Amino acid sequence: MVTLSEKILGAPAGTYIDRHIDRAFCHDGTGIQAKIIYDAMGAPGIANPDSVYIIYDHIAPANNSQTAELQAELRTLARECGVHFWDIGSGICHQVMAEGQVAPGEVVIGADSHSCTLGALGAFATGVGASDMAGIWVSGETWLRVPDSIGIHLSGSLKQGVEWKDVALTYVARLGMDGATYAALEFIGESTPSVPMEGRLTLCNMAVEAGAKTGLFYADKETERYLAEYSVPCPMQVLENPDYVQDCYLDLADIEPVCAVPHRVDTVQPVPALAGTHLDQVFIGTCTNGRFEDLARAARILKGRRVKVRTIVVPASERDFLKAILSGVAADLVQAGCTIGPPGCGPCLGAHMGVLGEGEVALSTANRNFKNRMGVGASYYLCSPSTAAASAIYGEITDPREVV
Amino acid sequence: MVTLSEKILGAPAGTYIDRHIDRAFCHDGTGIQAKIIYDAMGAPGIANPDSVYIIYDHIAPANNSQTAELQAELRTLARECGVHFWDIGSGICHQVMAEGQVAPGEVVIGADSHSCTLGALGAFATGVGASDMAGIWVSGETWLRVPDSIGIHLSGSLKQGVEWKDVALTYVARLGMDGATYAALEFIGESTPSVPMEGRLTLCNMAVEAGAKTGLFYADKETERYLAEYSVPCPMQVLENPDYVQDCYLDLADIEPVCAVPHRVDTVQPVPALAGTHLDQVFIGTCTNGRFEDLARAARILKGRRVKVRTIVVPASERDFLKAILSGVAADLVQAGCTIGPPGCGPCLGAHMGVLGEGEVALSTANRNFKNRMGVGASYYLCSPSTAAASAIYGEITDPREVV
Repeated sequence: MVTLSEKILGAPAGTYIDRHIDRAFCHDGTGIQAKIIYDAMGAPGIANPDSVYIIYDHIAPANNSQTAELQAELRTLARECGVHFWDIGSGICHQVMAEGQVAPGEVVIGADSHSCTLGALGAFATGVGASDMAGIWVSGETWLRVPDSIGIHLSGSLKQGVEWKDVALTYVARLGMDGATYAALEFIGESTPSVPMEGRLTLCNMAVEAGAKTGLFYADKETERYLAEYSVPCPMQVLENPDYVQDCYLDLADIEPVCAVPHRVDTVQPVPALAGTHLDQVFIGTCTNGRFEDLARAARILKGRRVKVRTIVVPASERDFLKAILSGVAADLVQAGCTIGPPGCGPCLGAHMGVLGEGEVALSTANRNFKNRMGVGASYYLCSPSTAAASAIYGEITDPREVV
Repeated sequence: MVTLSEKILGAPAGTYIDRHIDRAFCHDGTGIQAKIIYDAMGAPGIANPDSVYIIYDHIAPANNSQTAELQAELRTLARECGVHFWDIGSGICHQVMAEGQVAPGEVVIGADSHSCTLGALGAFATGVGASDMAGIWVSGETWLRVPDSIGIHLSGSLKQGVEWKDVALTYVARLGMDGATYAALEFIGESTPSVPMEGRLTLCNMAVEAGAKTGLFYADKETERYLAEYSVPCPMQVLENPDYVQDCYLDLADIEPVCAVPHRVDTVQPVPALAGTHLDQVFIGTCTNGRFEDLARAARILKGRRVKVRTIVVPASERDFLKAILSGVAADLVQAGCTIGPPGCGPCLGAHMGVLGEGEVALSTANRNFKNRMGVGASYYLCSPSTAAASAIYGEITDPREVV
């Protein structure tokens, strides 16, 4: 039977298709590049402005005059063409799109590799480069090869102190960084109904770290509950015994808190094995783990304590930040000595707001620890928000289960 | 009779003195430069570590690996020498020092031109360059010429919609940018008891914009009230009919909302004369106007509205941020679409977090609108927090009295 990708794309795996795009989004970085291609085409106009989204998250606010000028040009284009535009401080493109812009069954293309995040909503969501995005602006469509699918079978329940990020790092390590190249990961199995939307977003976000084209959850009651907050209708999606090219079985009860160690996402070690590793900086945020629930997890550990190392917290969106303020989470974080940055990507891409120096070591809730990404000559470990928070207290990698 | 500067420094105006320094502070920018000089001296040790403060505010968090490395080196020095150290996110050096680190009658030297801010507490506070700061680290003292003083006589009361920032811009315009060169401004007169500490900090902060060595308020009941929050004793300072080289009389009731126009601080125009000026960005923050009271003023205007132009708000300190969160001010600002940055200098110095592009126009609550400072080829106007907030709603300069 058909996979969810085949159903949404309307063709069997391996087929090359041209497809109308329901939502096409980019950020300031890729948007500026897409505009260059678009201008080179003679700026022929945007086919379907209501399907196009530009969201400033990467270097927002601008870090220098050149960035500001390029952002100003793209801002002008966005306004002139009537596309959806979110300025600095709105949040990370994937999170902003997840907040009521995407519905199950849609085809969503983002000019960013972590666009697979939106598969959490039962959409077919994947990333393209800036020139492909310019093509979508002009034509309203793009071509795709319908991917094969890999079944990620979830069973059991998470133990205390283990989080969805630990599951994500574990499955990436299991598959390997190129183990799922161009495949769609379908998260299925008896435990999927109990995975909350924020966990689904974290799990799908990291699909690309195993080389996957996307990650998907079938739309269910949890999807419906989540989308109701945004008044987005939620057609249910039914698993029809699809043909997978590979199966990966994860018993959630077996998963432990882990870190991806420098400089590969697919190389993980249990947190206890790394305990005591000195840290210069902790970063809690990104499209992987900057949501309100992530901040709240960190705050539960940090409340009433004080960080020993500089700790940067960046909410994934304005909405997440507002929830953190109204709930007391932001106050707990500030009182603990965290530095809260404006919603967006923060230091994740190494462009501003907490870049690391040579030889510095950081712990981050991001999805990538590639060499030099967050600072030339620096090393960083990836982990869950609770591991990050516990480690911030001691200035060294710390098992969150040890911090009561 | 003697001026407050003469009394604190213990010598008549015009005298050159060597003086023990009670508080010597620098930020990441000047601290890194001071360390270079200190190292060139052979790193002979810090004479009085308990009087030395290093506070990271200028490019905090770091904007690139080089900055991060330099900050790491200075951080190590701070810890090894046992000086007071505030890492990223703590706030602007002047504000952090004002929060319980400085007492009336002290001699306070900062490696930043706006160190005069702390004269609001009845201290003699002024700025030096980084090499002078290195000298203070090593010797515990520095040399000074005791300044002449100018009396700024405040009478009357502010009208609705007029703020201390308008008074500051007005006196700078009255004196001219070099009108008070090397003089100390003494804020005296019948209205001084009713100037709240946050207003005094704003007024003294801008003394250097008229060329002054410092600005001072005599410690009084308001100083005592303010310092009690930090358990800092407050000896009263009594005006003794001092000899001024010049007098400047300001009837607060005559003052109107004003903006300093590009590119001089001392060139002001009434806000109504500038109404309708298009804006690309609004910035509310800095050592002049990033305190909780300033944020609260902005929030009163923005609550329930939405900004039309990108608006960056940066609290002056962690404490100010926390007050804003706990009081609902931060929520009002975020709901209005403001982008809140981490406590520090934000985009004021044009190094990160909201630099302007060529041809862009901004409105800022900062103290300087020098050409190219906040972005190469950009123009910016200076104003009060309420003028900034009202203008943010319309995307153009707007009289705050028009926004009810």
